[in-house]
Amino acid sequence: MELSRTDVGHLGYNRRKGGSHLKREVLSDVHSDKLFEQVYDYLLDRIRRGEWKAHDKLPSVRALAAEFGVHRLTVFKAYQWLKQNHKVYVKDKSGYYVQPGSLLPPAAQQDPIVSAYVHESHLSEIHQAEAAYQFSKALIDPNLLPNRYFSEYVKKVFDLYPKVLGTYATTQGDAELREALCRYFAGRYRFDLTPDELLITCGSQEAIDLIARVLVKPRDTVLLERPTYSPAIDVFRRQGAQIVPVEIYPDGYRLDQVEEFMRLYKPRLFYINPTFQNPTGYTVPAEQRKRLVDLAAEHQCLLIEDDPCPDIYFGKEPPPPFFAYDTSGYTIYIRSFSKYVAPGLSIATVACRPGLMNYLIKAKSLSDSGTPLLNQKIFLHYFFSERMQRHLEKLRTALAVRKDIMEEELAGTGWEWRSPEGGFNLWVQLPESTPMEELLVTSRERSITFVPGSICDPLRELKPWIRMSYSFLNERQLREGVRRFVGLYRELSGEK
Amino acid sequence: MELSRTDVGHLGYNRRKGGSHLKREVLSDVHSDKLFEQVYDYLLDRIRRGEWKAHDKLPSVRALAAEFGVHRLTVFKAYQWLKQNHKVYVKDKSGYYVQPGSLLPPAAQQDPIVSAYVHESHLSEIHQAEAAYQFSKALIDPNLLPNRYFSEYVKKVFDLYPKVLGTYATTQGDAELREALCRYFAGRYRFDLTPDELLITCGSQEAIDLIARVLVKPRDTVLLERPTYSPAIDVFRRQGAQIVPVEIYPDGYRLDQVEEFMRLYKPRLFYINPTFQNPTGYTVPAEQRKRLVDLAAEHQCLLIEDDPCPDIYFGKEPPPPFFAYDTSGYTIYIRSFSKYVAPGLSIATVACRPGLMNYLIKAKSLSDSGTPLLNQKIFLHYFFSERMQRHLEKLRTALAVRKDIMEEELAGTGWEWRSPEGGFNLWVQLPESTPMEELLVTSRERSITFVPGSICDPLRELKPWIRMSYSFLNERQLREGVRRFVGLYRELSGEK
Repeated sequence: MELSRTDVGHLGYNRRKGGSHLKREVLSDVHSDKLFEQVYDYLLDRIRRGEWKAHDKLPSVRALAAEFGVHRLTVFKAYQWLKQNHKVYVKDKSGYYVQPGSLLPPAAQQDPIVSAYVHESHLSEIHQAEAAYQFSKALIDPNLLPNRYFSEYVKKVFDLYPKVLGTYATTQGDAELREALCRYFAGRYRFDLTPDELLITCGSQEAIDLIARVLVKPRDTVLLERPTYSPAIDVFRRQGAQIVPVEIYPDGYRLDQVEEFMRLYKPRLFYINPTFQNPTGYTVPAEQRKRLVDLAAEHQCLLIEDDPCPDIYFGKEPPPPFFAYDTSGYTIYIRSFSKYVAPGLSIATVACRPGLMNYLIKAKSLSDSGTPLLNQKIFLHYFFSERMQRHLEKLRTALAVRKDIMEEELAGTGWEWRSPEGGFNLWVQLPESTPMEELLVTSRERSITFVPGSICDPLRELKPWIRMSYSFLNERQLREGVRRFVGLYRELSGEK
Repeated sequence: MELSRTDVGHLGYNRRKGGSHLKREVLSDVHSDKLFEQVYDYLLDRIRRGEWKAHDKLPSVRALAAEFGVHRLTVFKAYQWLKQNHKVYVKDKSGYYVQPGSLLPPAAQQDPIVSAYVHESHLSEIHQAEAAYQFSKALIDPNLLPNRYFSEYVKKVFDLYPKVLGTYATTQGDAELREALCRYFAGRYRFDLTPDELLITCGSQEAIDLIARVLVKPRDTVLLERPTYSPAIDVFRRQGAQIVPVEIYPDGYRLDQVEEFMRLYKPRLFYINPTFQNPTGYTVPAEQRKRLVDLAAEHQCLLIEDDPCPDIYFGKEPPPPFFAYDTSGYTIYIRSFSKYVAPGLSIATVACRPGLMNYLIKAKSLSDSGTPLLNQKIFLHYFFSERMQRHLEKLRTALAVRKDIMEEELAGTGWEWRSPEGGFNLWVQLPESTPMEELLVTSRERSITFVPGSICDPLRELKPWIRMSYSFLNERQLREGVRRFVGLYRELSGEK
């Protein structure tokens, strides 16, 4: 089944309107219907066509809002994006002006491949924004890491491997590290693995990208959780995939829905993040894991399991990964260590069967020259140290405390969320009436960032949801930031 | 102009047959005409179709050679590749057996996107081969690097940035490093750059890959030097580019040819490696640099300038990069530091104008989570140190000595090469009668590796040429290895 782009948007998969889950939307591009992006595109297009030249003054926010019949904030947001993308600049508060010096040849500017990037990576752009109260970063506060000890491990690495900086890494990754990871996975989850079945990557982002490049060709169907990890949406969409969303609930998926999708759409893969899911924090229960692995094998749909933080639990340990239940080779397991071990090392590993591994190695050999050896060796000696294991205990406690603080401060709002059993985020449902665009813009002005739920949604809906990370700010900042955010929300919505 | 795959191979661009340079070949896939790969494909195909099952014994080398009417060594090589790719295993010297456990679902096995990787990255496979005399590695001998000092710089980095391992890198790269690189480029070449116009990548491979992904869409024409850096061929081919080769000579290109190609084929870009070119060692003279930059702007063809070793010169410094001559924004400059500064850090930088930079940053944000900060900080403090600059002097001398040794040992062979003025390689023309496949296989058996010229050729011809790197082995190994290689050659060709 193939749909042209013009079909897109006419198909409705919409729970609220009562559509059945079989009437689903095939997504190629749903950005175009967002108002502010239409304004953005309009302005950019005229700049590119040379209708406004370098240093020309652009229409005022008020004038454009009137012209288009949209809210001023919509135009304001479009201008903000243009500014961030170096297309316009602001002078003396008198207005927006065309930024000179975009020397990209005209052919490249109109190239559909090039322009495909324009609207991608919203998340990375939000991250790049400087802010005092970053609730958008699902990263660990660097102060929670044992920075003092890191340099000891680094010295040890240089003593053990004096030529480490003079040595190119192999494409697949350091053999010593892969062996250690095999023992670790076998001990913890009884994975049946050999070092040949592990690839070391520069973080999970590289792993997702390699997998997408090897496995997905244009118009392949890909199942994604809804909501899901935003850069994964971008990667699969760029690869030309038709995306079918699978709702995730506090108790996992609706397996009958998943089965029906697998049967109907013969998806190439299902990208899942089943443990303390990003953004929801939900964990797919063990019994579903076993059944879904069997379903995947039956329908020849690969499961891409992204597992960035199984060690960050607040109560009991989460169930073993899908990969532990897999006997037929349909699960590819991505385990990242950047999130909570050492973000500065950017180490992740991919486990899969040799047939697929061979392709991933080839793809990696063209993507970079192998994960730097120094990073692998430092990780090896730090991660498997007793100190690291002791540190994990402290980390879990510290993050649980921060989560509690955020929940305390949100308690009086009437907003809804499910208290997560691990991970870094609260997935918060605001009232339907929330003026989301305005909230986003005003928060930024007051140096507060959060992730609007639509960014995590393959359908770009989920309007009244937001992701708030409690992992990046210290306790004092966290409390203060949440208070300010709640205060700001009340101001906007006219509450006292 | 578009050509289907079946057209390929019927078009001849072949100097030896007297064809004009206008009758050129559009390359999508020229591997298929290689005998051993046909045997490889035949065997793999039957294994995949299940005609031979796991642990089945496969036909003997002799039997298959008779069946196909090819040389035994051709079959032997096909089996070697199958073994290396984990498709077959060898038991008790009694023959080849089908390797069990390739659990890739059938759909994936036949996927054209997946199988596109099968024949790629020949070079990385050659590099992975273990050998006592590695002439295939154009890498620096780790013993030539100041390993003892590296750890001092690393300690310094931890003192200066105690939280470096706890900190995620930004997508574009560390601001302090980009500022330092700007000053360096301005001082050395008068580049007119701001830190916003630099991106830090994990080595030049990532840079080439990002550029290809952002700029090249299927059937775009791309100019490549002939011969050129082999992984670049693979990257552009995978991107679906139609490749037009531009011959490189000791004195540069034939600019009238380049101009004609730009006019006729409107190429998207020209990937060049103009300074101590890999594999030839040739350097494009300064006067051509200026003219080619103008040609590129005139024809709106981007120049992708790959510059991995401008500091490794044996006589006078090479001319400034193309980027220094560029005033119109059509040059993208990739400067890698892995080759001779610290391979274990994997640091390269890309310089280009803001319009393009914006796209590269987006592409990188989906490819990895940014170049690890630790690596960037170590590089920063080491590269700009006085010790590094002193060390470069020693490195140039050491490599010149090694080059001389290789040339001395080859002096009596009658083989031809142009003595390079910098870089890591000799590009050697063997007699036309050289049995190249046999030489490759026998060399491997005797633990000697080299790069056959065809791997560096977008047309996969250049049969009697080989690339021999003098940078990886120490002086004693180098002399011994070249002697053995020359002896082996004489044996094979029946010389005394």
